[in-house]
Amino acid sequence: MFFSSQKIGRWKTENVPVWGALNRVLAEDLIAEEDLPRFDRSAVDGYAVKAEDTFGASQFKPKTLKLTSTSEVKKGEAKQVWTGNPLPKGSDAVLMLENVKLVGNSEIEVWAAVTPGENVSKRGEDVAKGEVAVKAGTRLKPHHLALISALGKSELMVFEKPKVAILATGNELVEAGEKLLKDQIYETNRVMLASLCHEVGAEPLDLGIAKDDVKEISEKLKQGLKKADVIITTGGASVGASDLVPTVINKFGKPGIIVHGVAMRPAMPTALAIVDGKPVIVLSGNPVAAFFGFEVFARPLILKMLGIENEARPVVVAKLTRRTSTALGRKTFVRVRVFRRNGEFYAEPISSRGSGIISTLTKANGYVVVPENREGLEEGETVQVHLFDKLEVLSENV
Amino acid sequence: MFFSSQKIGRWKTENVPVWGALNRVLAEDLIAEEDLPRFDRSAVDGYAVKAEDTFGASQFKPKTLKLTSTSEVKKGEAKQVWTGNPLPKGSDAVLMLENVKLVGNSEIEVWAAVTPGENVSKRGEDVAKGEVAVKAGTRLKPHHLALISALGKSELMVFEKPKVAILATGNELVEAGEKLLKDQIYETNRVMLASLCHEVGAEPLDLGIAKDDVKEISEKLKQGLKKADVIITTGGASVGASDLVPTVINKFGKPGIIVHGVAMRPAMPTALAIVDGKPVIVLSGNPVAAFFGFEVFARPLILKMLGIENEARPVVVAKLTRRTSTALGRKTFVRVRVFRRNGEFYAEPISSRGSGIISTLTKANGYVVVPENREGLEEGETVQVHLFDKLEVLSENV
Repeated sequence: MFFSSQKIGRWKTENVPVWGALNRVLAEDLIAEEDLPRFDRSAVDGYAVKAEDTFGASQFKPKTLKLTSTSEVKKGEAKQVWTGNPLPKGSDAVLMLENVKLVGNSEIEVWAAVTPGENVSKRGEDVAKGEVAVKAGTRLKPHHLALISALGKSELMVFEKPKVAILATGNELVEAGEKLLKDQIYETNRVMLASLCHEVGAEPLDLGIAKDDVKEISEKLKQGLKKADVIITTGGASVGASDLVPTVINKFGKPGIIVHGVAMRPAMPTALAIVDGKPVIVLSGNPVAAFFGFEVFARPLILKMLGIENEARPVVVAKLTRRTSTALGRKTFVRVRVFRRNGEFYAEPISSRGSGIISTLTKANGYVVVPENREGLEEGETVQVHLFDKLEVLSENV
Repeated sequence: MFFSSQKIGRWKTENVPVWGALNRVLAEDLIAEEDLPRFDRSAVDGYAVKAEDTFGASQFKPKTLKLTSTSEVKKGEAKQVWTGNPLPKGSDAVLMLENVKLVGNSEIEVWAAVTPGENVSKRGEDVAKGEVAVKAGTRLKPHHLALISALGKSELMVFEKPKVAILATGNELVEAGEKLLKDQIYETNRVMLASLCHEVGAEPLDLGIAKDDVKEISEKLKQGLKKADVIITTGGASVGASDLVPTVINKFGKPGIIVHGVAMRPAMPTALAIVDGKPVIVLSGNPVAAFFGFEVFARPLILKMLGIENEARPVVVAKLTRRTSTALGRKTFVRVRVFRRNGEFYAEPISSRGSGIISTLTKANGYVVVPENREGLEEGETVQVHLFDKLEVLSENV
């Protein structure tokens, strides 16, 4: 094999074909065992020559070289090559077609000089033997798969997708598509959380909906703990009469709930627990709160499990279109719609009264974090927007 | 059903479950047929009251209300509610728990006044009846799926994934994992192009590798035209002796090749054709040229087929760390590594001599477009970087 590798990290790994490795996270340093390219090759279509034979050539004072079809280029000779062809023995540069005129079938006129190495991809220029071609912890994108293929690798060791079991709780919840009775609402958070898991590279396992019932919640959590690496619940997280999830979790043993309530808005009632050595993230039933609870607690956890230290959402620096007020003492996640107009980026805060208003997410494409020690942001203030959806480009004069 | 929809566009559509709709493109305007929420509901845990009963209440001058367990809140009464509960008849606001003291089991002391509507999510506040909840042409993200679920929808009409057949040509190409002979190289572009298709929402079909042979290329292209909506080839695109693809395509009939050679770098030898009414994009065999040829020609085409007008890659405005020179008369795609340090974004050009050097892509995370009328970019110049991989965050003092 053209390859050696070094496994890192403690998370479970598996082998996958390169063709199925998009967005997976590499679990080994891929080290080139040979130079890439493996030989000096032409970077253009043209003629391989000895560079010194072209010195002084110009359109007004062309030099003439003899075409050869042997495997070696000798003094005064040139040999036709196409992009990617190995550089013929004896040659050290390539003339581009546009700087050459073919004279009959046996000679070329050279209109421009080349320096040694010009238009040549040197052996090892892409990746030198012994170099790390792709580092462990890399989220594999199309270009990584190209480089890995170039090194001859058809299978890779990647981190297993952490399995995340997702449970919604609430007597009022009904599965979308089914019939709704009075005072009931459709359950919205499982598919959202499962999709957020997919986006970050985890494998969601659906535990369905549990009633506000100790036994039913316990049963579902047990199932989740058996099959998954992480549990996420949504609903029943605060201190209301029917908010049973923290109570049930604490019955599973120590340490149980280790955090209950966080100084952020939305998602204040979020709780964090450890059960059977597995992290349990107890999110609010409010969809917007569940979204930001996932963003702040589940996303970094999953990335960490995947060996990724540093994968921020894309950030855009933008000007706030109007003032927005937030509460002191709480880190506030303000949903904004960021757009580009005439080359400038603007962020428009999406106003809302409750964290149950899902359209504040669908009208937004990013969020701004307002620190605890501020009561809001001013109109015209420069903010960093974390994008969770695509950027809009409006009228552009550029 | 809780729903009506309006189909748009001419591209083929299919129905998929909401659970499988992440990143698919909605083919119908989803219009709410009922208000969401369907009833006024409490946005917090607390007590539902008539707001006017609380006017003038403060910590120093609390007001007392009587708890009721009937379905209606009358003057002077309060009823306990949890987040999401329907607002009881007669009440028009909710007191938050923290502003209330329970006195015995039958009364509360109110420490702060509320205004009518306070802490209430009004019926229709999220999406009003008749409003478009999610527009056709939307790429569905986790939060869209939450909103769609909230409206009771479990299946959606989305645009079919355009099928893109991918063919690599070249006598020198060997499948990764197989044995390499002298002067051969591993084929790198099919998996990269297939992955780029996945990212943008198309379904790649692999046609494999064809030798530089008219018959073999013809056969493979025929297969592709039968099964796919778009054909992408890589290799054999320029005017070299073995660059047969344009020649073969022109034999398939009119119009055949309509563009051959574009004023951009890399990807100059790109050709565009129409065969049997289907677009054929003939990319260079150089991986970096193939990447940018896809970016400029295939990506917008696929997005257009999916009904998406405007889906830019994330853009970051950054300062160039050093000068980079480009050729006049060609739109140049300079690969850069953009990173954030102390809240500022910088773009470092990745230098390279050839478009065959794949590591110029893996070392980069974005590109800057240098227009035809410039010979390069200056150190310190402000540029817009189009991100194709994640942003790096280095030391941050913020």
